[in-house]
Amino acid sequence: MSNPISRYPVPNLEDLPSDLRDRMLQVQEKAGFIPNVFLTLAHRPDEFRAFFAYHDALMLRESGLSKAEKEMIVVATSAVNHCPYCVIAHGAILRIYAKNPYIADQVAVDHRKADIAPRQKSLLDFAVKLARTPEAVAEEDFQSLRAVGFGDEDIWDIGAITALFALSNRMAHLTAMRANDEFYLLGRVSAASK
Amino acid sequence: MSNPISRYPVPNLEDLPSDLRDRMLQVQEKAGFIPNVFLTLAHRPDEFRAFFAYHDALMLRESGLSKAEKEMIVVATSAVNHCPYCVIAHGAILRIYAKNPYIADQVAVDHRKADIAPRQKSLLDFAVKLARTPEAVAEEDFQSLRAVGFGDEDIWDIGAITALFALSNRMAHLTAMRANDEFYLLGRVSAASK
Amino acid sequence: MSNPISRYPVPNLEDLPSDLRDRMLQVQEKAGFIPNVFLTLAHRPDEFRAFFAYHDALMLRESGLSKAEKEMIVVATSAVNHCPYCVIAHGAILRIYAKNPYIADQVAVDHRKADIAPRQKSLLDFAVKLARTPEAVAEEDFQSLRAVGFGDEDIWDIGAITALFALSNRMAHLTAMRANDEFYLLGRVSAASK
Amino acid sequence: MSNPISRYPVPNLEDLPSDLRDRMLQVQEKAGFIPNVFLTLAHRPDEFRAFFAYHDALMLRESGLSKAEKEMIVVATSAVNHCPYCVIAHGAILRIYAKNPYIADQVAVDHRKADIAPRQKSLLDFAVKLARTPEAVAEEDFQSLRAVGFGDEDIWDIGAITALFALSNRMAHLTAMRANDEFYLLGRVSAASK
Amino acid sequence: MSNPISRYPVPNLEDLPSDLRDRMLQVQEKAGFIPNVFLTLAHRPDEFRAFFAYHDALMLRESGLSKAEKEMIVVATSAVNHCPYCVIAHGAILRIYAKNPYIADQVAVDHRKADIAPRQKSLLDFAVKLARTPEAVAEEDFQSLRAVGFGDEDIWDIGAITALFALSNRMAHLTAMRANDEFYLLGRVSAASK
Amino acid sequence: MSNPISRYPVPNLEDLPSDLRDRMLQVQEKAGFIPNVFLTLAHRPDEFRAFFAYHDALMLRESGLSKAEKEMIVVATSAVNHCPYCVIAHGAILRIYAKNPYIADQVAVDHRKADIAPRQKSLLDFAVKLARTPEAVAEEDFQSLRAVGFGDEDIWDIGAITALFALSNRMAHLTAMRANDEFYLLGRVSAASK
Repeated sequence: MSNPISRYPVPNLEDLPSDLRDRMLQVQEKAGFIPNVFLTLAHRPDEFRAFFAYHDALMLRESGLSKAEKEMIVVATSAVNHCPYCVIAHGAILRIYAKNPYIADQVAVDHRKADIAPRQKSLLDFAVKLARTPEAVAEEDFQSLRAVGFGDEDIWDIGAITALFALSNRMAHLTAMRANDEFYLLGRVSAASK
Repeated sequence: MSNPISRYPVPNLEDLPSDLRDRMLQVQEKAGFIPNVFLTLAHRPDEFRAFFAYHDALMLRESGLSKAEKEMIVVATSAVNHCPYCVIAHGAILRIYAKNPYIADQVAVDHRKADIAPRQKSLLDFAVKLARTPEAVAEEDFQSLRAVGFGDEDIWDIGAITALFALSNRMAHLTAMRANDEFYLLGRVSAASK
Repeated sequence: MSNPISRYPVPNLEDLPSDLRDRMLQVQEKAGFIPNVFLTLAHRPDEFRAFFAYHDALMLRESGLSKAEKEMIVVATSAVNHCPYCVIAHGAILRIYAKNPYIADQVAVDHRKADIAPRQKSLLDFAVKLARTPEAVAEEDFQSLRAVGFGDEDIWDIGAITALFALSNRMAHLTAMRANDEFYLLGRVSAASK
Repeated sequence: MSNPISRYPVPNLEDLPSDLRDRMLQVQEKAGFIPNVFLTLAHRPDEFRAFFAYHDALMLRESGLSKAEKEMIVVATSAVNHCPYCVIAHGAILRIYAKNPYIADQVAVDHRKADIAPRQKSLLDFAVKLARTPEAVAEEDFQSLRAVGFGDEDIWDIGAITALFALSNRMAHLTAMRANDEFYLLGRVSAASK
Repeated sequence: MSNPISRYPVPNLEDLPSDLRDRMLQVQEKAGFIPNVFLTLAHRPDEFRAFFAYHDALMLRESGLSKAEKEMIVVATSAVNHCPYCVIAHGAILRIYAKNPYIADQVAVDHRKADIAPRQKSLLDFAVKLARTPEAVAEEDFQSLRAVGFGDEDIWDIGAITALFALSNRMAHLTAMRANDEFYLLGRVSAASK
Repeated sequence: MSNPISRYPVPNLEDLPSDLRDRMLQVQEKAGFIPNVFLTLAHRPDEFRAFFAYHDALMLRESGLSKAEKEMIVVATSAVNHCPYCVIAHGAILRIYAKNPYIADQVAVDHRKADIAPRQKSLLDFAVKLARTPEAVAEEDFQSLRAVGFGDEDIWDIGAITALFALSNRMAHLTAMRANDEFYLLGRVSAASK
């Protein structure tokens, strides 16, 4: 009864342009599997390249946000957009970066009740507002972020990550992108206890 | 940085009426820990008794719904109500009853995209509508459930479980009830592999 | 053209367990008729018992809220849930307890414009928010209630009554529970003028 | 603790232009009191005249709708707009025209559950949609009305009454217009029993 | 592929009562064409007369609002009601009164980001709230308007114009009223450059 | 009183990496001015490159959608997101591609009432749903598009353009990106009449 990876055809690795294939093999080497977002978006190589260029520009960039905070944005905004792939896959990454097996489920259900710092609640308030009702973001919202210590470049990061996953969530809904089974357990059990 | 169990005082087991204490010790014996909903609601013993009487009347009752289907209702409706305790605790129970480590996260994010049977999607469509916009439930919604094989007593079960967790979700938001750490991993790793 | 009492079978008094029958006869003696909620919920005796145990635990409890304030919560939250039974039946009870023939209709249409005390508007703001968007209730909302004099046990009462009628409204929508004709006029004409 | 008639000054009858005063005295003779909408809108005589000219053009016009059906539209759309004056005052008129003491409260809480004819539910579905989300009214909605026997002029009546009370509800919210105490009981007790 | 002026019959000028015909010829002389709102509403002469009496009472009245500010209200509230006729026709009038070719498009898309004065943003915040969720207008909203210098009669003007176009937008949706082609370019090119 | 181009610093052309500067000069040569989206996004060159790579991959791609249809998607979805830059700038491009001075304003206010083909209304129904409530897009929505002749690759185009402008609208809200004055009149006056 399990759904396919994508509503659209999923290419074979050997049929892909080499830059796409190389990227996937690299990920596979590191993670042990190829996340379905790569396979799904590879249906359109040019869009794949643009998507991951955007992703890397934001997610790998030096920033006033920690890696875990960036992933929190992805989980919280994808949750209000009801996007299974992004919540489950980035929930795993968030658990790993935050070294916290509880945080992703908490942020996905309701970031306001999660065990996170007040500055992180402010960050997610802003991101969730921009994600669902972008027109409502006003000068006061910038001031709230500055009040908890975020600079203007940090705020661009928050906004731009939210914007990129607004795109990503919609591609995932369009393609009915399926989360890999591997993501569900990642970061839940400490290395030691495995 | 982790939140307390409840906004309200949490009683000591020894100070509780014996029927409440007995119930908790029974659960502890079975589950290995006392779920926080017991400790939180014990602040008001009469309400505790009524809540669990209602719970048992519905959840333990013979029904056209399987145990896993009952828990799916709890997870899906609690997710649209953004209730951390109920999603996380009943997500664990759902994984166990369904013997499926993926299903709870899928149902919590978007039941329409989950790997569940069409009859279960209909069931959750009805439950989620009753949970968030009860006034919108109309004769057509009953017909949709009958069309996939549910009888009128099954529909009462669906509606009443949704109604009970409408109450429960609000008590959890009122008390800021915290999910026990134990729930997060339950049902994710098979007994064999542990 | 009038609708039946319930979508579900309504039992005969003589076929009911004696505790249910006794409760109904008691109410009938006091009120002059049996409110349809008793007949409707009696379709499932165990759930009937749990419901009224919960109801009595909250509504009969000594509290910082007056009886009229408790009924205001029921009327206001049932109105935003568009529940005919609860608005009409508890509107009658509210008129009686408040000795005010106008208050129930005012609270049902818009509690913010009703002729009630500021503390009661705060109380209903909280209840209505918890009723329709429980996830939005935040620490500030508790502070607003404390600012007008409610203690933490009062706030539990407000929240728990709202929660119980979140359940009740959904059972009423599920069963299409019909309000008894008797409720419409109750409390509108003073005893003297009758 | 009762609120004033209007947020704005309410003129004395003797200070009003004679056409306004005459209209009010006429109503008073017939109803036994002057409904507050007359006193409130008289603050601006030209707008008063235009409002009642519009009102009479629609409400007194021969139509495929009965007088009770016209008032049902007012009650149902004013209820979704949470307008106390219009729900309470026109609820009274609806009870009188329909010779039915229950109908107004039912329509105000949820027209879909009211004891009214299917054609009347269709009529109110259309009116409520136009009242709250006018942009959503589509060709299918016209077809639904035609299917239950309404002609195009009837549909204009439905739409125009809804539109006029969209205006009226907003004037009532702007002025915090208070319903006269007399309205609450009107049409609830039959002439015979008084 | 262009739509008709109205879903309803549009009368010939010669068949109209002379007061309606005279008004239309007057407008035609001034504007160079007859706006479709006249032709559409002329289907019901009595309602036509009441509508324009209301319109003139408000729009031609001396006021603390400038003519451009009155039209801003029409454009902003009609935009949130998705009313093509009113946005396009009154957008043209706004451009002319404000002598600003950009303002109407800005206000239509999002008044909060438009190049208008802070007092005008407050004015439109109030109008848009009253237009879409009239029940939410509260004492604080009056205070915000007073804080930027509006008097109580100005606030009546703001509220009443919003209310009249709540009516007008619904009549336009009911009739699928089409904007005249002439409106689109009006006020976009300065007289000099033509 | 006019707002700046962006909340963030806008770089000087001479300080930009040459690939960004070249792209801007190219656009300037063709359009006569540099659209502010280039200047605003140039604040982060890597994100600029990814954005325009994505844009070109979708907007310049051979497709079952005409160029005008692609721009309709941008205008309709940006309008429901209340994004001034995108509605005004892409409204201009839509007028030019469609050779129709009316279409952009119609689509921006309400695509369902616009003078466009039924297939285009279906296309925009899908796009607007994906833009605002992506979780609601279901198999039936794909079937509606197929029923009016769109193939699966066309649907990807519709979805991906909607997704890209979900990103773009959020960047425009984040930066308060201002539309260039030149866009307002573009495509409104035919070349001949200028």
